[in-house]
Amino acid sequence: MPDTPPVFADVDAARTRISPYIKRTPLLTNAVVDARAGASIFLKAESLQRFGAFKARGAFNRIASFSDVERRNGVLAFSSGNHAQATAGAARAFGVPAVIVMPSDAPKVKIDNTRALGGEVVLYDRVSEDREAIGAEIVAARGLALVRPFDDPFVIAGQGTVGLEIAEDLDDLDIAFVPSSGGGLASGVALALTARFPQVRVYAVEPEGHDDVVRSLASGRREVNAPGVRSFCDALLSDRMGVLPFAIAQEKFAGALAVDDAAVAEAMRVAFREYKLVLEPGGAIALAAALSGRIDIKGARVAVIASGGNVDPDLFARVLAGQ
Amino acid sequence: MPDTPPVFADVDAARTRISPYIKRTPLLTNAVVDARAGASIFLKAESLQRFGAFKARGAFNRIASFSDVERRNGVLAFSSGNHAQATAGAARAFGVPAVIVMPSDAPKVKIDNTRALGGEVVLYDRVSEDREAIGAEIVAARGLALVRPFDDPFVIAGQGTVGLEIAEDLDDLDIAFVPSSGGGLASGVALALTARFPQVRVYAVEPEGHDDVVRSLASGRREVNAPGVRSFCDALLSDRMGVLPFAIAQEKFAGALAVDDAAVAEAMRVAFREYKLVLEPGGAIALAAALSGRIDIKGARVAVIASGGNVDPDLFARVLAGQ
Repeated sequence: MPDTPPVFADVDAARTRISPYIKRTPLLTNAVVDARAGASIFLKAESLQRFGAFKARGAFNRIASFSDVERRNGVLAFSSGNHAQATAGAARAFGVPAVIVMPSDAPKVKIDNTRALGGEVVLYDRVSEDREAIGAEIVAARGLALVRPFDDPFVIAGQGTVGLEIAEDLDDLDIAFVPSSGGGLASGVALALTARFPQVRVYAVEPEGHDDVVRSLASGRREVNAPGVRSFCDALLSDRMGVLPFAIAQEKFAGALAVDDAAVAEAMRVAFREYKLVLEPGGAIALAAALSGRIDIKGARVAVIASGGNVDPDLFARVLAGQ
Repeated sequence: MPDTPPVFADVDAARTRISPYIKRTPLLTNAVVDARAGASIFLKAESLQRFGAFKARGAFNRIASFSDVERRNGVLAFSSGNHAQATAGAARAFGVPAVIVMPSDAPKVKIDNTRALGGEVVLYDRVSEDREAIGAEIVAARGLALVRPFDDPFVIAGQGTVGLEIAEDLDDLDIAFVPSSGGGLASGVALALTARFPQVRVYAVEPEGHDDVVRSLASGRREVNAPGVRSFCDALLSDRMGVLPFAIAQEKFAGALAVDDAAVAEAMRVAFREYKLVLEPGGAIALAAALSGRIDIKGARVAVIASGGNVDPDLFARVLAGQ
């Protein structure tokens, strides 16, 4: 497991390193949503990022930072989706093969896109098989470099560039809501935003039943999520936070909150109706948190990270019909 | 009917005039779409514009250009939707009332949004009632200023700022596809793009069965669409082009093409899957044209105007299910 958490300078360096490869995404405002929230909401549309999610930032920063020798034989990633697509796409950009170990129940759109990006997909059964063992065997046999989804300083620094871009677009910021699973995005964004806006309060948002961040911040150690709890936020179902993200979280997070699937579905409908954006469940959870009233945001300037838009059309249609 | 068509300098002036009120929308690229088209596609996401469509540009430019006396009692617009919302929203920004005459079969989302923006909606039956007569009566009785949807030099110049922004973001451009109904957007964009890129070919795109632009360019006079032809491109069903847009079209358009609803629905699915954008049918028709193969775009740099995203969720869900 890698050594020390990244610092703000690493995020800054990542911005320069990955800028030829990633998109600068827009920060969107909407008068209807502001009126509903009684606040100024700035929605960072990472759903418009390359491969449809913020994960491209960390994957490009990680693979670009491997030496030629390290990445010579290719890379391997475990992922249920967005990290899979990002790693496959970034590996292709650097001309190296990518093996992606994915659960067989991952959204079809994510499996298809990973293959379309040139990734060699190895499926495993989430219940009966051990993805770590499968991955370790392939890594050893083929001499691949492992691209961790969050517990890597280069990945965290890459995701943190989302926060840097927000800081470039705003003069001031009071509150930020960031989706959290392994915590790479939330910790990277917290590094960037607290460096630029010392008074900003950064909240991690997670699915109800997967509230390990809430519990970990309270207990001071990395708590584990109970297995078997279901949420349709497929991108946010890791067992617990990474070591490095948690170290940053303890210092930089103002708190965490868990949001239920019904609120996430409503946020997806708000994104559809008001922002004209396609968000996947995990991509809408920060907006759901902002609209929940659980944290007082009245009159505040609030950043909301809409982290991804890779969602199967049938699920999206069902969410729309739930209005 | 107003006198002379606007020129490029009017578009430039509109850009300055409306910039405090409208959003600068992103120009999106997508590797999957480029590979499919064999071209470099630049999609101008006007669905992310204020009120969900490009119409905000023309409405703000028109209302800002009325004198205080002219707009004193308020404004009136006829519209099936996007121009309705834009006029209501722009009037509210200038603190004047807006009366919007809408067909009773307009998409519910557009009627609701117009009301939410403070517009007084007057519904009429598209088959049995004459909207011009209804509107003229209200204009006379209340002393309102008419905000035409397209046959107005200020409206055309406002819509043309879409083209100016595209030109700012690109070094070069070969082809542009622009939705056309009354022709305000297509003619304004053609003014802007041909001024900046003298060799660019601008094509108007219209729904099959409503191919008045194709026929008008051939005959040299404004042809009328046969009544009763249905298309689900509700934003693109005007009877014929405006006088001023047609004058510009004759000089600046490279041509026009009509696209059927099935191709538009497929373009909406491409926008959902690849760009993570919610587009209404009329907003996806230029992308449909680009992907149709009807105009040879191989190897070209192609701008596609995604003009709006105001679509009822049940229609959107049906389009997704049509995959």
